[in-house]
Amino acid sequence: MTKDQELGITVDKEKNVSEWFTQAVTKAELAEYAPMKGFMIIEPYGMKIWENIKENFNEMIEDEVDNASFPSLIPESLLEKEKDIVEGFDPEVAWVTEAGKDGELEEKLAVRPTSESMIAPYMSKKIRSYRDLPFRVNQWCNIVRWEATDTRPFLRTREFLWQEGHTAHRNNEKAHKEVMKRLNQYEKLYEEFLAIPVLKGKKPEHDKFPGAEVTMTVEALMPSGRSIQSGTSHNLGQQFAKAFDIEYEDENQENNYCYTCSWGLSTRSIGPLALAHGDSQGLVLPPRIAPIQAVIVPIFQEESKEEVLDYCRELEDELKGIRTEIDREDHRSPGYKFNKWELKGVPLRIEIGPNEAEDREVTLVRRDNRDKKIVKLEEAGQKVEGTLEEIHEDLYQNLLDYRDKHIHEAVSYEEILEKIEEEKGYVKAPWCGREECEAEVKDEIHAEIVMVPLEDEELEGENCAICGNKAIKNAYFAKTY
Amino acid sequence: MTKDQELGITVDKEKNVSEWFTQAVTKAELAEYAPMKGFMIIEPYGMKIWENIKENFNEMIEDEVDNASFPSLIPESLLEKEKDIVEGFDPEVAWVTEAGKDGELEEKLAVRPTSESMIAPYMSKKIRSYRDLPFRVNQWCNIVRWEATDTRPFLRTREFLWQEGHTAHRNNEKAHKEVMKRLNQYEKLYEEFLAIPVLKGKKPEHDKFPGAEVTMTVEALMPSGRSIQSGTSHNLGQQFAKAFDIEYEDENQENNYCYTCSWGLSTRSIGPLALAHGDSQGLVLPPRIAPIQAVIVPIFQEESKEEVLDYCRELEDELKGIRTEIDREDHRSPGYKFNKWELKGVPLRIEIGPNEAEDREVTLVRRDNRDKKIVKLEEAGQKVEGTLEEIHEDLYQNLLDYRDKHIHEAVSYEEILEKIEEEKGYVKAPWCGREECEAEVKDEIHAEIVMVPLEDEELEGENCAICGNKAIKNAYFAKTY
Repeated sequence: MTKDQELGITVDKEKNVSEWFTQAVTKAELAEYAPMKGFMIIEPYGMKIWENIKENFNEMIEDEVDNASFPSLIPESLLEKEKDIVEGFDPEVAWVTEAGKDGELEEKLAVRPTSESMIAPYMSKKIRSYRDLPFRVNQWCNIVRWEATDTRPFLRTREFLWQEGHTAHRNNEKAHKEVMKRLNQYEKLYEEFLAIPVLKGKKPEHDKFPGAEVTMTVEALMPSGRSIQSGTSHNLGQQFAKAFDIEYEDENQENNYCYTCSWGLSTRSIGPLALAHGDSQGLVLPPRIAPIQAVIVPIFQEESKEEVLDYCRELEDELKGIRTEIDREDHRSPGYKFNKWELKGVPLRIEIGPNEAEDREVTLVRRDNRDKKIVKLEEAGQKVEGTLEEIHEDLYQNLLDYRDKHIHEAVSYEEILEKIEEEKGYVKAPWCGREECEAEVKDEIHAEIVMVPLEDEELEGENCAICGNKAIKNAYFAKTY
Repeated sequence: MTKDQELGITVDKEKNVSEWFTQAVTKAELAEYAPMKGFMIIEPYGMKIWENIKENFNEMIEDEVDNASFPSLIPESLLEKEKDIVEGFDPEVAWVTEAGKDGELEEKLAVRPTSESMIAPYMSKKIRSYRDLPFRVNQWCNIVRWEATDTRPFLRTREFLWQEGHTAHRNNEKAHKEVMKRLNQYEKLYEEFLAIPVLKGKKPEHDKFPGAEVTMTVEALMPSGRSIQSGTSHNLGQQFAKAFDIEYEDENQENNYCYTCSWGLSTRSIGPLALAHGDSQGLVLPPRIAPIQAVIVPIFQEESKEEVLDYCRELEDELKGIRTEIDREDHRSPGYKFNKWELKGVPLRIEIGPNEAEDREVTLVRRDNRDKKIVKLEEAGQKVEGTLEEIHEDLYQNLLDYRDKHIHEAVSYEEILEKIEEEKGYVKAPWCGREECEAEVKDEIHAEIVMVPLEDEELEGENCAICGNKAIKNAYFAKTY
């Protein structure tokens, strides 16, 4: 806390979630506004969360996927090779038009809004034979998309960090398997590390990634009742392979186009992490992703200082393998420190005063529900570990209960509007598959179809809740971030 | 090796080092040319080296320095706040002038050529009191500098990856200590991990980083006899603090300007790694940084296949903790594989044929000097580890011997020219400190002053080798990359 600012959040999360969010992420020092509209600085505390996400996701994919680094600037002519990409992203591209002593460039360069158009020519060069497939490459990098409105740290910024995986396969079946594998890994990342349950589904045709045959998404429901798209995985079919000549020679020396995929997860994920778990006192970070899992707060008068600090260090040794920190800011009161670490969402606070030191005990206070318990020093490691696991489970379960209570069903247009507006969350309704029907809901209440569930069978004998024509699938309507 | 290309390098390193370098880095798949002039793709094999460098350097600094992420675009007005930065970098900046639906921007944005101008305002916001000092932040990111001429993978590209550390301190003495600490860490990184000896020194006044009071450099001598600037650490004095109002309140409630520093090391470092150690067969990677430290090459006929592969897996278990890979490309001959791994510079090759399997032995072949030795399976782990250490030592020692033989002395202009041209390497000569004297050498043979050694005393009673006026310091002249 290096700023001379009001420490706490000045609004209730329930009363003004939008203002709460901005205060929570900036006062907890996850991010700071940059000097230009729509850009943010990811501060060290936020960066550690992103690095934890990165490390966990890298571990999931590293057996199969190599990291590489591609240029951040993409010539216009390359972007134009695949018409859907250029149409889809043109309204959001930042263009480099002048550079160095060259002055005005002959061809302008896009600051990458996504890298299919840069990685496809690389695949075309590297892939020769069926032996080179599957071909997989990933990069962790920055992305610029010139969002026009309503930018907010993490949730919607003109620049963000992400990973983008790009793969090539022999046939559509293998491409589909890849798409599902990465989607499942995103689900795992959210559920097992971020303690956020997600729904997996397919985006409607008209809302797919530009150039994709199929876009899969993981969606998380926020306590505001709005859904957030949290990661996407695309089957690009042969569209990019044909535009960029990504061919392989099969066992019979015949050339075939590959099927390609791409999949991405960004720093946007830190948005739901803050939104979903936080409370009016600040962030509540799930333990597996928290930069500091347990903060040790020494409480002492001058005469007990040495004893208390010695005991804190002893405790720290007991907690090896757990990410701990001793708060040594001598000029701050315990109350200030408690507020600070609550704001920063550290899952567990460990209070150490002269009594604890004397009795060789420690006091554990859970950030999420304030439960307090006193444990013996020698069992501290095990108890802290256990409590952190409980916190994870409880955070996850709370969101899961909330979500399960907020999947409503509707069979008419009016019912869709009413339930979304009044009961919040998702409304599941039979849908004919046409964009026009979604548009009616969108125009009226700014809700949209966030996904069509994967597991559901095609409907038979049901009618679209909106137009009354034959329904094909159930669609999930919701307001979104 | 996924390309349908000539596997080996077609030129001798001694005869044409420039062509050798390009072939070595692309054929070993460290990097590939991007579709735009001056840009490169860092391929997975090269990226693993960079990730190893990153991991090792992060470990050196992580106790004191936090990682963060700042915007990649910097408004022109911010860049202009510190006049030396804008003058120094303007000829190399790529400018975003149009974006999204906004069309032409009111203010153009520089794709960051370095981030002092973005991080200084952040420091100004975050630093309030002496308690916030030292303030240290680092980012790993991409940088764009529009190099006009002679771009080459790693050595000189229009985009590269780097780390940039930015720090603020109470006084000049602490700033200087920081600069030296990071310089020493760069030295350690080069010597202990990349097996490259470096010389530490100060850049001449006229060749400092824009806005710096002092620029320190680590310089490595390449076998071509040219020096390469391999990392720099700058004391920025109060120049940025004054331009961006980076102030702190001291114990007496008085405001003072901070002293700031910045220090950076980039993917350029992979250039000397390839250049310094490689030979005509390809790369020779120092073991501590090599993505694969030992490659196991099974050699078998169809009837011995199972036995040999089983034995390879047994060996792999013995080599836990060492980065190994079994080459399973069944359709390739052992000869092809040997060439491939030599090209890629894997420090140690382990040959496993039916004889080795039967005798429970393994054959180790060093990449650097081709030394072959046969060891028992049960001592393989220890022997491989020992051999890898020997390789590191030998690679380092060879370069050190070469460098020590190539520091010449000169007392006249003619002698400087002659020794640089004929004997290669560094020429140490007394110098008056004026740019004009360096310019004469530069104009004549494109050599320059790469640094002034740190440890040398001020000279007394000696004359500048070039102009004959009073000399102040010995300067090291060399041709550079």
